[in-house]
Amino acid sequence: MSRERLYLFDTTLRDGAQTNGVDFTLHDKRLIAQLLDELGIDYVEGGYPGANPSDTEFFSQEQGLKSATFTAFGMTRRPGRSASNDPGLAMLLEAKADAICFVAKSSEYQVRVALETTNEENLASIRDSVGAAKAKGREVLVDCEHFFDGYKENPEFALSCAKTAYESGARWVVLCDTNGGTMPHEVETIVREVVKHIPGDHVGIHAHNDTEQAVANSLAAVRAGARQIQGTLNGLGERCGNANLCSMIPTLKLKKEFADKFEIGIPDEKLASLVQVSRTLDNILNRVPDPHAPYVGSSAFVTKTGIHASAVLKDPQTYEHVSPESVGNHRKVLVSDQAGRSNVLAALSRSNIVFEKDDPRLTRLIEEMKEREAGGYAYEAANASFDLLARRTLGKVPEFFRVEQFDVNVEQRYNSHGVRVTVAMAVVKVNVEGHVLISAAEGNGPVNALDVALRKDLGKYQKYIDGMKLVDYRVRILNGGTEAVTRVLIESEDELGERWTTIGVSPNIIDASFQALMDSVIYKLVKSNAPA
Amino acid sequence: MSRERLYLFDTTLRDGAQTNGVDFTLHDKRLIAQLLDELGIDYVEGGYPGANPSDTEFFSQEQGLKSATFTAFGMTRRPGRSASNDPGLAMLLEAKADAICFVAKSSEYQVRVALETTNEENLASIRDSVGAAKAKGREVLVDCEHFFDGYKENPEFALSCAKTAYESGARWVVLCDTNGGTMPHEVETIVREVVKHIPGDHVGIHAHNDTEQAVANSLAAVRAGARQIQGTLNGLGERCGNANLCSMIPTLKLKKEFADKFEIGIPDEKLASLVQVSRTLDNILNRVPDPHAPYVGSSAFVTKTGIHASAVLKDPQTYEHVSPESVGNHRKVLVSDQAGRSNVLAALSRSNIVFEKDDPRLTRLIEEMKEREAGGYAYEAANASFDLLARRTLGKVPEFFRVEQFDVNVEQRYNSHGVRVTVAMAVVKVNVEGHVLISAAEGNGPVNALDVALRKDLGKYQKYIDGMKLVDYRVRILNGGTEAVTRVLIESEDELGERWTTIGVSPNIIDASFQALMDSVIYKLVKSNAPA
Repeated sequence: MSRERLYLFDTTLRDGAQTNGVDFTLHDKRLIAQLLDELGIDYVEGGYPGANPSDTEFFSQEQGLKSATFTAFGMTRRPGRSASNDPGLAMLLEAKADAICFVAKSSEYQVRVALETTNEENLASIRDSVGAAKAKGREVLVDCEHFFDGYKENPEFALSCAKTAYESGARWVVLCDTNGGTMPHEVETIVREVVKHIPGDHVGIHAHNDTEQAVANSLAAVRAGARQIQGTLNGLGERCGNANLCSMIPTLKLKKEFADKFEIGIPDEKLASLVQVSRTLDNILNRVPDPHAPYVGSSAFVTKTGIHASAVLKDPQTYEHVSPESVGNHRKVLVSDQAGRSNVLAALSRSNIVFEKDDPRLTRLIEEMKEREAGGYAYEAANASFDLLARRTLGKVPEFFRVEQFDVNVEQRYNSHGVRVTVAMAVVKVNVEGHVLISAAEGNGPVNALDVALRKDLGKYQKYIDGMKLVDYRVRILNGGTEAVTRVLIESEDELGERWTTIGVSPNIIDASFQALMDSVIYKLVKSNAPA
Repeated sequence: MSRERLYLFDTTLRDGAQTNGVDFTLHDKRLIAQLLDELGIDYVEGGYPGANPSDTEFFSQEQGLKSATFTAFGMTRRPGRSASNDPGLAMLLEAKADAICFVAKSSEYQVRVALETTNEENLASIRDSVGAAKAKGREVLVDCEHFFDGYKENPEFALSCAKTAYESGARWVVLCDTNGGTMPHEVETIVREVVKHIPGDHVGIHAHNDTEQAVANSLAAVRAGARQIQGTLNGLGERCGNANLCSMIPTLKLKKEFADKFEIGIPDEKLASLVQVSRTLDNILNRVPDPHAPYVGSSAFVTKTGIHASAVLKDPQTYEHVSPESVGNHRKVLVSDQAGRSNVLAALSRSNIVFEKDDPRLTRLIEEMKEREAGGYAYEAANASFDLLARRTLGKVPEFFRVEQFDVNVEQRYNSHGVRVTVAMAVVKVNVEGHVLISAAEGNGPVNALDVALRKDLGKYQKYIDGMKLVDYRVRILNGGTEAVTRVLIESEDELGERWTTIGVSPNIIDASFQALMDSVIYKLVKSNAPA
């Protein structure tokens, strides 16, 4: 039996841009549009030309997407104006996009209170706008705003808005749960009604997550006959977000019920890039990835307790609903203070460190980890520091060099021109096999200065660390306020492109950073088999 | 028509404890159990006595909960042992709890692979364990692990496990979607079958969020006849979390479809404490609250764009699905670089700063905010810094004092006993109306030292700031890696118990901290009407 085509419409760059704390630069938008195109998304809604200068500029040039339909969003013509006399509509029509997605009212209440006009004028506005866009050769979509609330209050009017859009030539009529308050069974019932009037392959769903059911609402609409799902990457969107495409794509591709019936535009090999796509968006936006995100979260396939861990190691199917690798994720059996010996042994074997199961040093390692983690260390996040801790317990880490002393200084004053300047400088005194080396460096901040000074001259070891660089620095204050302990995570990369993460914990942020920097350097020396 | 009773079972302290990165101290557990009891939760699952020392201790004393049923979790007796010869079961029976919740296998596959025993032995194990607990006067619940997968694979066996539990005297038989991979309509179909064999008011649902449908699955089970929902606060739980009680409670109380049919143990006035409960858990665990969490998230009722803002200000119903105050939240019209004038005016009036709508200085303020926010400032999080920025644009902030220079030093070395010590010291030179004051201070870190030195002697202004203290310090690195810009948020509190938040942004963390500290002090002086 052949499968039906299901279309995915991404509004990360438009609805997602309304997220509290999110702002896309023009460059960001271009990157993300490409990312979505490569993933296999059918429609990329790039923004709202005319609403702000950045979006207007984005639509002033072709984006050259290979397969996705590049879409511009905007309002239907304003009440009381003609289509040819509406500057907002004019901007939309000028936009260099393949498609236009109009947002139209479909709730009587909204028409009256928000637009302050009549039902008839609202329908005319839909008709005129769709017609104008079709005349310009655009594919047209119409987002029926507040559709479900509107339907519950006056089903005939809501339906007439949707039908007017379809009859005027819209390729898609999208039913929006704008407030996010509709329940899945309500969505299913209402969509079933709508597809009696408009063919399901012209009906879309646009859900919001205000009751934490945006995904369920979207899938319910598909079960009821809709064939387009609108959402965002990582569930971005104002308030509680839009329907999360990263949660829905794997379900559509891997769960029998959907995979047997529907085909989406994302091929299997692209599904395996989903984790990467999700992280890329977070990196662009400087957002901390949600470790608990379904499918793509770093904890999505992580088992902590001893019981689960031994079952999973026996047979992954016991606790995994899909294979992690299919979405580019991996199984992780955690190292943590709740860990049983089996967890730690598994983590150690990943680092190629071998302990016998009954080795008393293993017990000592686990005890030390529990103690340190109680104090703020988090070894599941810092693979290289865990590695070194394990090796030290085995007595296998030489003391390549010793930092006798360091001094970090930050000074702020007015310079001779009366301009306020801030200067950071560090001095590090290192003892390499009896040779005392003193290095000084400036930096854009105290940690940067310390990092540069530390790695400036390590004598015979300098050549091993020359290719290293710090690529990420993360700080977290634990226990809040004045009793705070600072946890620093540093990610380093070397000339081979290998990356590793180290950790430091202290009430003093410079000390915490120093621990992480030291572990990073020592790890590189151990990894390079530098002669001690 | 009278409503049916729906029961809420919280497993934050048991299933929630398995969250990656979460560890509860004994003190934490006591606090949270009280919190849940006061909220009106029916069952509080406190943990797994025997699994770790902390949980065993937790159950060694009565908790004295006023209305919630305090519950201990554990496994049914092991295969091949008798109930009286199973140490794990013995610990459970000794636990000072009102109820025991046994986890039992209900999937043939799990019985064979994970337990390595027979179906008959599994049923006997359920029967014996429930019997033993009933004999000791406990209320009994049975979590049928992997129920939905088990039912799909062998419905008779899964059902027999559930029926055995019920017939042996369990008050509740809880159907668990342990892998989190079941779809809501499957849950609804299967639960409808189960309640033909076991009365719905003895059937519970325990869902996981691996496809982002734990809430939908829980509500679907209720629609199908189940009358207990298991979940956690803030959706805590391993992998992608358990069903989020903070998302479900308001839906059950405020959405007609549920509120008309069901009554839960949480009275209206306690519903209004939900935001507080959610934040309290995050504070205890030092977790950053999810701003986008449904109902309780700080962004759950926040509108950013000008269009939405003006509609919401006209009539909140246009964009809100429930009233924010009912859950203890509030509507926020954001100040951000996408903000229209109306947004900023609304924020200003909250600070009692009055601008005329057409005041050119308002334009200047908005422009300056956009510029600063592009550079990393985030005024929606820093009310006091926003306040000062607005007042400065109006020319209303006197220069109480001037920091001519500061110097912050962190030194690490070995002391005379060969112990590594880290010392942080700061010197600040301040000019107060021509008087130059130099103060020095030590601290547990460079920012602490700078804070103490800055506020040590401000001459005539010292009395206004004596009651101030820093209560929270948050750091975030933006733009990652070596091009990083650091954003610091500082929350301060004074002798009146008032709190305010200030912000600083710089590549240099000390400079960023200094900006936030200065704003904090100046804000206090302005607030106190200190004479300039």
